[in-house]
Amino acid sequence: MTPVYVLDLVSVFVFALSGALVASRSQLDLVGFIFVACLTAVGGGTVRDVILNRDTVFWVAQPEVILTASVAAVLVFFTAHLLESRYRTLLWLDAFALAVAVPAGVGVALGMGQPWAIVVIMGMATGCFGGLLRDVVCNEVPLVLKQGELYLTAAFAGALAALAALYIMHDTVTALLVCAGVTFALRAGSLMFGWSLPVYKGRPPRA
Amino acid sequence: MTPVYVLDLVSVFVFALSGALVASRSQLDLVGFIFVACLTAVGGGTVRDVILNRDTVFWVAQPEVILTASVAAVLVFFTAHLLESRYRTLLWLDAFALAVAVPAGVGVALGMGQPWAIVVIMGMATGCFGGLLRDVVCNEVPLVLKQGELYLTAAFAGALAALAALYIMHDTVTALLVCAGVTFALRAGSLMFGWSLPVYKGRPPRA
Amino acid sequence: MTPVYVLDLVSVFVFALSGALVASRSQLDLVGFIFVACLTAVGGGTVRDVILNRDTVFWVAQPEVILTASVAAVLVFFTAHLLESRYRTLLWLDAFALAVAVPAGVGVALGMGQPWAIVVIMGMATGCFGGLLRDVVCNEVPLVLKQGELYLTAAFAGALAALAALYIMHDTVTALLVCAGVTFALRAGSLMFGWSLPVYKGRPPRA
Repeated sequence: MTPVYVLDLVSVFVFALSGALVASRSQLDLVGFIFVACLTAVGGGTVRDVILNRDTVFWVAQPEVILTASVAAVLVFFTAHLLESRYRTLLWLDAFALAVAVPAGVGVALGMGQPWAIVVIMGMATGCFGGLLRDVVCNEVPLVLKQGELYLTAAFAGALAALAALYIMHDTVTALLVCAGVTFALRAGSLMFGWSLPVYKGRPPRA
Repeated sequence: MTPVYVLDLVSVFVFALSGALVASRSQLDLVGFIFVACLTAVGGGTVRDVILNRDTVFWVAQPEVILTASVAAVLVFFTAHLLESRYRTLLWLDAFALAVAVPAGVGVALGMGQPWAIVVIMGMATGCFGGLLRDVVCNEVPLVLKQGELYLTAAFAGALAALAALYIMHDTVTALLVCAGVTFALRAGSLMFGWSLPVYKGRPPRA
Repeated sequence: MTPVYVLDLVSVFVFALSGALVASRSQLDLVGFIFVACLTAVGGGTVRDVILNRDTVFWVAQPEVILTASVAAVLVFFTAHLLESRYRTLLWLDAFALAVAVPAGVGVALGMGQPWAIVVIMGMATGCFGGLLRDVVCNEVPLVLKQGELYLTAAFAGALAALAALYIMHDTVTALLVCAGVTFALRAGSLMFGWSLPVYKGRPPRA
């Protein structure tokens, strides 16, 4: 039970909840819920592991990951109707999962001794590709690319913060906690207070 | 010519036919037909092989697979106009291909000594990802996630049936045949008699 | 600095420009530009490297690739408003990138001693999957599958031309140049003069 494995497992559970919520918007059956939940839950980590050419993809080595995601799907199938707002819940679950998955990706890449650019990318990929697959497969506008919100930026800043923290404090666990904190703070700030970066505005009037 | 290789080849041909039919709905040219046919035909097996980190993806080791898919595409390009209903034909070809691809995936995972959860997932992935890629790329609603039909469920039940048969009869070929039979029976029952699982219905009135 | 690496780097830069232009159509922020640019730039080569099971995906081995793509994204973010027609520019950048990426894929597969069918497919995959990912993620109609244009055909013909040139002249660099030339000529001819292959026309009247 390394810290990275715990992060992977928590992000699997929470991303699975978010995937099942999207499945409920598409009115799928229980097996459909499990499928979308698993795709969302392991998508990012799978992309990471395949690209880094790890010997075994994390959930193939630990199939209980799939069980975890399936439990989350069943839970949502039978309780989602109790939620006040499914979309609001989806946004916050997704934000929390992002804040756990980014440090999971950063941790794996650090553990393999990858250069810093790859560490940052693996943090972003682990955090963002599960949700991206979920939204592309279910034909929703990808949250990742939703205009006027911090999402990729939150992941990017979180991964950079991890490197900074590691450089200053030389402790991986601290660095991963900083990463999670920064990612969640930025994403939550965007959801609550509308924080955003300026977007490309097309052709402005020329001076 | 192992049984799994024969299954892979048959599913490649039939999935390629289904991919070419979708290409015909998008009015592509012959090379477009071949592209979509190949993507559909090898998509599921490629995802399986990459995730299981096999030394060589099955069609890289046996390029005649690509030739098989291309022949199917050419066949459809020149004869699809003879079909009474292209969509109906697509559904049945896809059902048949699913029933062949699921045991192909199960067989590969069994041959690698994977735990049962991974065997089931690889059966489902091999069966479902080719069609999913086809539909996402061609911008169709994914058959895999079509509401009120057994598709993922058929694949899931087929893979479980393979494990049960293997446990009882200790013979892989029998297990793969049982897998194909169960998958096809459920999918065909869904297409012919409307068999389905209950879908998520949104917020019901509270008691 | 092998010829293949130079090709990869040039195609990364130009595909990144095209990705950033699509991001500008979706009005993303700067980090969104970088994300779509990187996805487009390395998508095709990543699919190639993962399927061929190379020890290291090309941009993990050379992270400056990511820097190159990011620079392209920043460039477009601040200058795209100066373009007369962003869509026209996108089409031509994409054509140029295709003509560089196809020989990059061919070169990698040749270098690994792959059979000719795999060489052709890797040329096409390297050329086409980056743009396909870009368009699927940004919810555009994939350029790759646009009806009545040579795109896949240009990539296919270019890859075949490389094999022919290699067979006649026994020189890899020449073969890759021929590949780039044929691919670009066909794609450009399609954009300028409407060259195309006959498309599937649905049910014609029966004789």
